[in-house]
Amino acid sequence: MFKTFFIVILFSPIFTLSQIELNDSSMIRYIFDEALTNGECHQNLKELCKGVGHRISGSDASYKAIAWGQNVLKRYALDSIYLQEILVPHWVRGSKERLDFSSKQIKLYQSKCLAYGGSVGTNGVLKGNIVEVKSWDELDELGEKKIKGNFVFYNRPMNPTRLSTFHAYGGCVDQRYWGAVRASKLGAIGVLVRSMTLKQDLNPHTGSMTYEGADLKIPSVAISTVDAHNLSEQLKKDKETEAKMKLGCKTLPDTVSYNLIAEIKGSEFPDKIIVVGGHLDSWDVGEGAHDDGAGIVQSIEVLKIFKNLGIQPKHTIRCILYMNEENGNRGGKTYAEMVKNKGEEHIFAIETDRGGFTPKGFTVDGTPEQLTSLQQFESLLEPYDLFFIKKGYSGVDIGPLKDGKICLVGLVPDSQRYFDFHHAPSDIFENVNKRELELGAASLASLIYLVDKHWD
Amino acid sequence: MFKTFFIVILFSPIFTLSQIELNDSSMIRYIFDEALTNGECHQNLKELCKGVGHRISGSDASYKAIAWGQNVLKRYALDSIYLQEILVPHWVRGSKERLDFSSKQIKLYQSKCLAYGGSVGTNGVLKGNIVEVKSWDELDELGEKKIKGNFVFYNRPMNPTRLSTFHAYGGCVDQRYWGAVRASKLGAIGVLVRSMTLKQDLNPHTGSMTYEGADLKIPSVAISTVDAHNLSEQLKKDKETEAKMKLGCKTLPDTVSYNLIAEIKGSEFPDKIIVVGGHLDSWDVGEGAHDDGAGIVQSIEVLKIFKNLGIQPKHTIRCILYMNEENGNRGGKTYAEMVKNKGEEHIFAIETDRGGFTPKGFTVDGTPEQLTSLQQFESLLEPYDLFFIKKGYSGVDIGPLKDGKICLVGLVPDSQRYFDFHHAPSDIFENVNKRELELGAASLASLIYLVDKHWD
Repeated sequence: MFKTFFIVILFSPIFTLSQIELNDSSMIRYIFDEALTNGECHQNLKELCKGVGHRISGSDASYKAIAWGQNVLKRYALDSIYLQEILVPHWVRGSKERLDFSSKQIKLYQSKCLAYGGSVGTNGVLKGNIVEVKSWDELDELGEKKIKGNFVFYNRPMNPTRLSTFHAYGGCVDQRYWGAVRASKLGAIGVLVRSMTLKQDLNPHTGSMTYEGADLKIPSVAISTVDAHNLSEQLKKDKETEAKMKLGCKTLPDTVSYNLIAEIKGSEFPDKIIVVGGHLDSWDVGEGAHDDGAGIVQSIEVLKIFKNLGIQPKHTIRCILYMNEENGNRGGKTYAEMVKNKGEEHIFAIETDRGGFTPKGFTVDGTPEQLTSLQQFESLLEPYDLFFIKKGYSGVDIGPLKDGKICLVGLVPDSQRYFDFHHAPSDIFENVNKRELELGAASLASLIYLVDKHWD
Repeated sequence: MFKTFFIVILFSPIFTLSQIELNDSSMIRYIFDEALTNGECHQNLKELCKGVGHRISGSDASYKAIAWGQNVLKRYALDSIYLQEILVPHWVRGSKERLDFSSKQIKLYQSKCLAYGGSVGTNGVLKGNIVEVKSWDELDELGEKKIKGNFVFYNRPMNPTRLSTFHAYGGCVDQRYWGAVRASKLGAIGVLVRSMTLKQDLNPHTGSMTYEGADLKIPSVAISTVDAHNLSEQLKKDKETEAKMKLGCKTLPDTVSYNLIAEIKGSEFPDKIIVVGGHLDSWDVGEGAHDDGAGIVQSIEVLKIFKNLGIQPKHTIRCILYMNEENGNRGGKTYAEMVKNKGEEHIFAIETDRGGFTPKGFTVDGTPEQLTSLQQFESLLEPYDLFFIKKGYSGVDIGPLKDGKICLVGLVPDSQRYFDFHHAPSDIFENVNKRELELGAASLASLIYLVDKHWD
């Protein structure tokens, strides 16, 4: 069945074998065939999105999602399925937000908005003028004199010339995260932020923010890119344009939740662990389809592929459905603490949390030797349009595992559409393509197969 | 402004320069920046899809599309814009098709269907039983005895394990193209074909077919993948299931239409021509957004990028909006005849007709020397996630230019979603992503820039 031709690999510092057998190539073919013909991740995603919906930490839906995950995992005859208890923040959006703009020239205009996760409410209606800025320097130059008593409107757009939309996002998300803290220090009463997307539409995109270092907590909301554009134009016409904001959101006491973990026990090195995971929580809009329902069902699919193809891993393959990536990363942090406390040995962890789009390659946060070792698999993966294995970021959930020894990896799908949907009402099942999702699952399973086989 | 570092390139058989200057890298950056910040192709596509809609050769809409193209091209201060007259087939769908299934066990079930372009009508209602086959061998084994007087139902699905969906399409499209000819030889009265898509949905996908070699022309329609699945299940239960088909389509006499051509004249080699193009006609369903509105607006965008950046090409850049790719390729063939008759020298032609998705690379149909020469640009394009320049197919419209001298190239976008929309009512503007479309235009402009500069 397998061809017996061998490719000799040079410079393989951490390979058990000094050779990669061509049957690796056949096995990767089987993995892709399995994902593309018998794949269940698209149907599983439909169940999660339509049966559970969005599922922010601490919400009823988040527990329903955990129960859903347990049921799905039980189908695949795994060696163990268990929960890890964690404590999560519990923020609730409350009644629907309201944001109105008015001026002497224009009639009242109601803008869609979404409070950022963690934001305080307005305790009634908050009223004030709006000061637009595009940079911290601009904010600081305006100073308390111009900011005090007003809303700050952060309107720096994502840079469309960055090929990776994640880089464009990285150049703007400081406004969302630190906007309230910086504005409150100058006496602002609230914050409006242009949504983190390159798409011009009417969807506000929520996300995380902080009050770290703030003496006063002021409310903070996202408005859509179209509303941001229109507001900016309006402010050019009339600086006295007024906003009225009403938010009912609040933070309740931390509550108990869980990471959901499932394993296939390793035959040779059961105490050496390979992790694959994504996050089960989502923001409280849309259906958390790309972020990160896709990663959840792909991670589960990896185990399913191993079981269906009868691949017995040498190391323990542990699939982790993390809770609370979006607003606290308590799942990732608590898991890493447990690993440290128990002295468990993790050799490799891979995260999938960049959307269920066509995979392009992998980014590696590890030692140069680990990177070199992984790059020796490139020729095996290139036939599947996985074009690179290069140094780069892995992921939020697995990040806390970093200890100088473990190799952390992120799956990199095509990023062009990701921020069209990210944290927005449009992140729904219908916007995930079945084949693109399946190819991501197969890519994860293939790299894990190779690492399990050739590393010790 | 430009850095002066030079990269020495070895083995450059047809370069004018023996070096690629690093300012190529800067210029490609400008090209991508222009496409991603000042891109007009998405707005142009909206105009074409929503203002004109679908536009099969010979239809009123096809002439409206030509007028639209002329108006758009006039905005860009080009050196010339002109029409090339061609004669095109003129097939009309007529009244909406009707296809019903019934049997003793089931009530009448109405199935969506689309006649294939070129099909004859039914001249009333056609009635008969249905014989399902998945291969030509199966058809021939059944023979006249089982086929005569019945409909043949071709139900071989596209192979989901082929990574490129174009390869999966290539493994099935013979059913659509030759199905009527082969079935009619065995006495069939009509043909139903499973739609050429990997997606399970209710959209029938039309396309071209032939009667070449047939003594009798029998009607031929596409049914959706879901209807094909259901029909197959029904036939397992009851072989006597009957179809009633009514089609009003017919072929009118050939009519006059036009390729639309626009040029930027070359400064050094005005008589040596570089072609970029796609096709302006579409099937008569949906809006021809990916197929090939995307290619049309990308080809126009190439000229716009050259003009806006003040790039004066050495060779003449000719943008061709071909007519009649879908059902005859008269545009491509007539253009190539004109080139031959006039003795025009074409050095390079690139086609964009695989959808407006994230570009991955280029396939080259040229001499080994041309391929090697183009591959020397790979390092300049790789920062834009253009991962390959390799031997392969170029395109239907530019194909007839092949003469052993010209280098033919196809832009290769990600193919995973293409056949979800191909020739179907779902091929509409909303399913084209702005950035993905713009990246394709920038990729075309970049390769043309490099060829124009370094070839002679």
